[in-house]
Amino acid sequence: MSTPLVSVADARRPLHAGVDVGGTTIKIGIVDDLGRTLGATKIPTADETGVPDAVRRIAAALRSLADERRIDSGDVVSVGLGTPGTMDIPAGLILEPPNLPGWRHFPIRDALAEACERPVTYANDAGAAAYGEFWVGAGREHRSICLFTLGTGVGGGVIVDDVSIDGAHSHGAEFGHVVIDTTAEARRCSCGKPGHLEAYASATALVSIVRERLAAGEPSSLAGIAADSLTALDVAKGAEAGDALALRLIDDLAVRLGLGVATVTHVIDPEAVILGGAMNFGGAAHPLGQRFLARVTAEFRRLTFPVQAARTALLFAALGGDAGYIGAAGLARLNHRNQAS
Amino acid sequence: MSTPLVSVADARRPLHAGVDVGGTTIKIGIVDDLGRTLGATKIPTADETGVPDAVRRIAAALRSLADERRIDSGDVVSVGLGTPGTMDIPAGLILEPPNLPGWRHFPIRDALAEACERPVTYANDAGAAAYGEFWVGAGREHRSICLFTLGTGVGGGVIVDDVSIDGAHSHGAEFGHVVIDTTAEARRCSCGKPGHLEAYASATALVSIVRERLAAGEPSSLAGIAADSLTALDVAKGAEAGDALALRLIDDLAVRLGLGVATVTHVIDPEAVILGGAMNFGGAAHPLGQRFLARVTAEFRRLTFPVQAARTALLFAALGGDAGYIGAAGLARLNHRNQAS
Repeated sequence: MSTPLVSVADARRPLHAGVDVGGTTIKIGIVDDLGRTLGATKIPTADETGVPDAVRRIAAALRSLADERRIDSGDVVSVGLGTPGTMDIPAGLILEPPNLPGWRHFPIRDALAEACERPVTYANDAGAAAYGEFWVGAGREHRSICLFTLGTGVGGGVIVDDVSIDGAHSHGAEFGHVVIDTTAEARRCSCGKPGHLEAYASATALVSIVRERLAAGEPSSLAGIAADSLTALDVAKGAEAGDALALRLIDDLAVRLGLGVATVTHVIDPEAVILGGAMNFGGAAHPLGQRFLARVTAEFRRLTFPVQAARTALLFAALGGDAGYIGAAGLARLNHRNQAS
Repeated sequence: MSTPLVSVADARRPLHAGVDVGGTTIKIGIVDDLGRTLGATKIPTADETGVPDAVRRIAAALRSLADERRIDSGDVVSVGLGTPGTMDIPAGLILEPPNLPGWRHFPIRDALAEACERPVTYANDAGAAAYGEFWVGAGREHRSICLFTLGTGVGGGVIVDDVSIDGAHSHGAEFGHVVIDTTAEARRCSCGKPGHLEAYASATALVSIVRERLAAGEPSSLAGIAADSLTALDVAKGAEAGDALALRLIDDLAVRLGLGVATVTHVIDPEAVILGGAMNFGGAAHPLGQRFLARVTAEFRRLTFPVQAARTALLFAALGGDAGYIGAAGLARLNHRNQAS
C-alpha cells in the first residue's frame, strides 16, 4: 500500500478503522482523525467460506494490526465498512453482490459491529472510495466531487458538502449505468441493458473491444497475445509501446468517458470529477495517463456549459487502492462526530 | 392560483415569503411554517424595466399582500427568491438568464434583502419548485426527490434529505441537458449541443417535431392550424380528440423522457421522481396525462435496475404554478432555522 504511515505518537485521536471488501482481497486500515494511516493490512476475501467467517477474520486482523502497531485498541472508536453492491445500506445488509457469489443476504454491518465491539458505518465500496478521495485525496480542496471508479466494472460516488449520495435504494452514483450510446450498435452492459458507460469504459469492455478488432484482422502487436489471456494492462502496455490499435481504442474509451462525465456533471455539477480505479493508464505521472486524461477532459469540455468547461476540475485519484478503507474510516468518523455532538 | 389558503388565525408562525420569477410573471406568496399559503399575488416581470425596478415592485407587492391579508409584517421573518439561470447562487447574482434579456449581471439577492429588510435565500427556479414539491407537494412523504420541470424548456431539481443539490457552479440538476440521443440524427438543444432531453421533451421541441411531420405531409387534424401559431396545448387537445399523429408524438416524447428519468435515477437514486411544469397533458386527472405518465414509467422501468423499477415512485407534481414561491419560502425557512439553532 502506498499511503505513508503516521506514527502512533503523532496521531490525532480518536482513531477509526476502515474495511474495504473487494472480490479477491479485503483491505483493512486504522487511520487517525486527520485521515492519516497508522497501519494497514490485507486478507483474502475467500468468499466461498461465507460472510460469518469473513467477519471473524476481519475482526481478528484488526486486533492483530492494532497490536503490531502498538495502538491502544481503546483509541479506535468506530469502524467503517465498504462492500460492493447490491446492498441495503440503511439496513446494513449484503444483498447479492455479483463479485461475491458466496455472500448472499447477510446482516454484515451488525455482525461486524458485534465482532469488533464497535459501531460500524456501512457504505458502498465506490461511495467509501469517493469519501476517501474527498477527505484526504484528490478532492481534499473541493466541497463536492464525483468519483468514477474504472476497473473490472465502472462504479461511482458522489460527495456533496461531506454527504455521500448513497441513493434511496443504495443505487446512487451508478455511473457505469449512465447511457452513453443510443445507436442500434450499442454494446450491451453486464447488467443486460444496451449503451451503458460500463460497456465502454471498464477493463472488461476494453479487452472485449480489442479482441473483436483483432478477430476482425486489424493489425496490432497485441495479436501476439492469446485472446483469452489478454488483459487491459496488455492493451495499456501496447499503447505505451506505440501500438496504433491500442492507442486508438484507448482514445475511443476516453471520448466515451467524456460523455459520461458530462452527463453526470449536468446532474450533480461538482467542483471536481475524479477518475479512480486501476484503469488509469499510469495516471498523471505517465504520458499515456496524461493523454487519456487530456482526451476525457477535451470531450467533457466540448459537451458541457462554458462555466463548467472553464471551472470543473478533472483529476486522477490520489489514494490508489487505499481510498476505500480510508473513506470507510472517514464515514465512520462522521457518524461518530454526529453522535457525539 | 390553486393552493387553498390558511387563515391568519390558524397559521403556524414564523411566516416566510416566497418569490418566483418567470419570463412573464413574478409570483409572490406568504406561507406559514407548515408550508401553507396565507396569500399570494402576481406582478408582471416586465424585464425591460430592469432588475432594480423589479426589486422595488416585488417589495411593494409583498407589503400590499401582507396588508390585504392583515398579516403582521413582523411575523414574516425571511424571504426566498427563485430565478431562472444562469446565476451564481452563493454570490446572489443574476448572470445571463436567456428568458430575461433585460436582467443581466445584478446582485439581486442583496438588493431584494435591502428592499424587504429581511434576509433573502436565493435559489434556481426549478430548485425552488423541487423544494416546494418535496416540502408540501407530491414529494412530501419522500426523503429524496428529483423534479423534472417540463415547460418551454426542461429544468430540474434534486432534493436529498432537505438539501437542494444546487451544484458548485449553480448548474446542478440540469436535466434538460442530459444526453438521450447519440445517433447521427440527434436533435439540437437550445444550448447548441446535440441529443439533449430538452430537444425532445420540452413544449418547444414537441411543437417543432409536430411542425416537421406536418410539413412532411403526415395526415393530422393539426394541419388545420397555422404552423406559426401551433402550441403544445393544441397538440395535447388534438391527442385528446384522437388525432393519431399527436398521440404518437406524445408517446414518443414519453419514451424519450423515460430514458432521461432512468439516467438521472442512476446518478441520484431518489425515492420519487416528480414530473412538473405545464407539459403534463392534464396530469393525473386526465386520461391523456395518465397515458403519458404510464408510458414514461414503463420505459423507465424497462431501463433501470429491478429494485428501482419496483420501488421508485413516478408522480405528477401537486402544487402546479405555486411550487416555486412555496419552495423558495421553504428554503428561506431552512436557512432561518439553521441560523436560529
